[in-house]
Amino acid sequence: MATAGKVIRCRAAVAWAPGKPLSVEEVEVAPPKAGEVRIKIVATGICHTDEHILTGSFPNVEFPVIPGHEGAGIVESIGEGVTSVKPGDKVIPLCVPQCGKCSFCLNPESNFCQKCHISEPQNLLPDKTSRFSCKGKQIHHFMWVSTFAEYTVVPEYSVAKIDAAAPLDKVCLFGCGFSTGYGAAINTAKVKPGSTCAVFGLGGVGLSVVMGCKEAGASRIIAVDINKDKFAKAKELGATDCINPRDFKKPIQEVLTEMTGHGVDYSFEVTGHADTMIAALASCNMSTGVCVMVGVLNSGSEISIDPMLLLTGRTWKGTVLGGWKMRECLPKLVSSYLEKKFNSDLLITHTLPFARVNEGFELLRAGKSIRSVLLF
Amino acid sequence: MATAGKVIRCRAAVAWAPGKPLSVEEVEVAPPKAGEVRIKIVATGICHTDEHILTGSFPNVEFPVIPGHEGAGIVESIGEGVTSVKPGDKVIPLCVPQCGKCSFCLNPESNFCQKCHISEPQNLLPDKTSRFSCKGKQIHHFMWVSTFAEYTVVPEYSVAKIDAAAPLDKVCLFGCGFSTGYGAAINTAKVKPGSTCAVFGLGGVGLSVVMGCKEAGASRIIAVDINKDKFAKAKELGATDCINPRDFKKPIQEVLTEMTGHGVDYSFEVTGHADTMIAALASCNMSTGVCVMVGVLNSGSEISIDPMLLLTGRTWKGTVLGGWKMRECLPKLVSSYLEKKFNSDLLITHTLPFARVNEGFELLRAGKSIRSVLLF
Repeated sequence: MATAGKVIRCRAAVAWAPGKPLSVEEVEVAPPKAGEVRIKIVATGICHTDEHILTGSFPNVEFPVIPGHEGAGIVESIGEGVTSVKPGDKVIPLCVPQCGKCSFCLNPESNFCQKCHISEPQNLLPDKTSRFSCKGKQIHHFMWVSTFAEYTVVPEYSVAKIDAAAPLDKVCLFGCGFSTGYGAAINTAKVKPGSTCAVFGLGGVGLSVVMGCKEAGASRIIAVDINKDKFAKAKELGATDCINPRDFKKPIQEVLTEMTGHGVDYSFEVTGHADTMIAALASCNMSTGVCVMVGVLNSGSEISIDPMLLLTGRTWKGTVLGGWKMRECLPKLVSSYLEKKFNSDLLITHTLPFARVNEGFELLRAGKSIRSVLLF
Repeated sequence: MATAGKVIRCRAAVAWAPGKPLSVEEVEVAPPKAGEVRIKIVATGICHTDEHILTGSFPNVEFPVIPGHEGAGIVESIGEGVTSVKPGDKVIPLCVPQCGKCSFCLNPESNFCQKCHISEPQNLLPDKTSRFSCKGKQIHHFMWVSTFAEYTVVPEYSVAKIDAAAPLDKVCLFGCGFSTGYGAAINTAKVKPGSTCAVFGLGGVGLSVVMGCKEAGASRIIAVDINKDKFAKAKELGATDCINPRDFKKPIQEVLTEMTGHGVDYSFEVTGHADTMIAALASCNMSTGVCVMVGVLNSGSEISIDPMLLLTGRTWKGTVLGGWKMRECLPKLVSSYLEKKFNSDLLITHTLPFARVNEGFELLRAGKSIRSVLLF
């Protein structure tokens, strides 16, 4: 490759400081060091987590930073010792790595590699340096992926190689939103055929939960949102009922309990609001109900609950990226997509050129998009 | 039987009002109506829940009441239509019924019959009358069992028939404490062989959790209590480590995380204190850790948590009577006891004649007993 071993100058969206809009800049991207992979990003989705970075509410982020974590691209070059991918491979960079060596990676039930951002901030690559600079300043990585750059460098264990037939402008969603929601139903809740589910929040992740519940064979999927404009898409993806909490005088957990006799079998919280978290927990049945938290509350916030909600038997749990061990599972998920087992394309409402990244965020904030995909 | 169909006069311990000691009285016990069973109680344990009744903190109890819910006895007579037990059968009355007809009873994963006290207060028998009176006043039932009476009347679906060889002064513990703790490990947490467990609170239920973890094959069982006098018994029953939070300057969840690398696989809260509930949750590992709440917080109290504790993957759940479907599982548990699969006798530290019931409560309050068993 003509570029291998050289610094690449390309476009990226830089967040210079919390609370400021992204700035599209020309950045320098250094070549990959040993164990690293440089990827030409082709497409990247805009996820709510990126918005949390911009507002400064995502934990442990250092500015200036290149956000973006839901991308797909093609390997441009590899560092010394990299064996699992080669230039030209289609890949998805992973915002939760799979190092394959830590106790969580070795545990078949965990997907939460100990090299993840929560355990050890991923603002620099593992050797504690950055591959990004702009106007002479070092720019931080975000969760080792930084897909809002035309070229990015990631550790080998943060890359999943996918089928060469995969359309990158579609499967980029598998890097976060789709996998998180779909997996929350399939892996974390383990939704059973014939069961009843409630999904709170019908953004891209919530709608992916609806798809997961449908795939798992749920017989009733109740979609809950205060924005009725989301209902048509929810029904298209598998929701059997759509309800708006504002249409009722009583708490939504009482409405759901009455609709279902004793509460749903599985509830999913995908809004990140404290009161919705409690409503979701109380909406599942008091004995065997399972509530999965997918939405992230603002860093440092607490929620207060009556422990009796749990003592009668409910299960409350969280999910990270839908429980998938990303390096081994993403390629399979892409294959299922190519076999048309599900149609995640329906989540993509907008496709924009990369230069219009801030417009994509405005659509997100206004609740007008489900997923916007940016194309380089 | 000479007594069948007649009112029986016998002794019982009556709680006339919250905050008062129990009063041993002569009471009248009416014969069983259709679908009911009158049982001669032979032995009854004293459980913390009985103490909660006396202080008035247990929900939905009506006074005056005959407490007691951890008893064993012999069927004295049966009402019309009763077919599953006959006079002379050894039985354990059940504080959570198994009606066999509700959606929870029909669900193989639930043991929380909808005829339980939480769904519909069990202060009177299902026909809304009491079989107890004293000094011309109606006395309430407690959870349809009221084992602090020499004779009690319960619905047929609140009785488990057990092996005729069972020693009633020992297996009475199976009516609540032992089954709850042992089942919390076996059924609710589903502890796996080779795993690491932490048990917070070493009363009768906590020690039964230790026994359940051992039976399930846990390789490390860390027993936690602020009363070091409990440690010898905990080790006898299977604890591999015993620690006192007061011996450390740092929070006990940090101590446990350091002891185990990333936290235990399973933690059990058996104290009913809000701060211990949070410590137990934080003590299990952030990805696959499971925290089971067994202890009951005072009615109406709330606890405040950082939802990030769950979002990374932990599971938080509660247990009711250890998850056993009592009518079908108690007889098997008694058989396992008779086969010496475990030795729950070690939990019984005091055996007292029934007249000394208040002394039994004093031992409980002073932390001097694990289980006191009262004999009629």
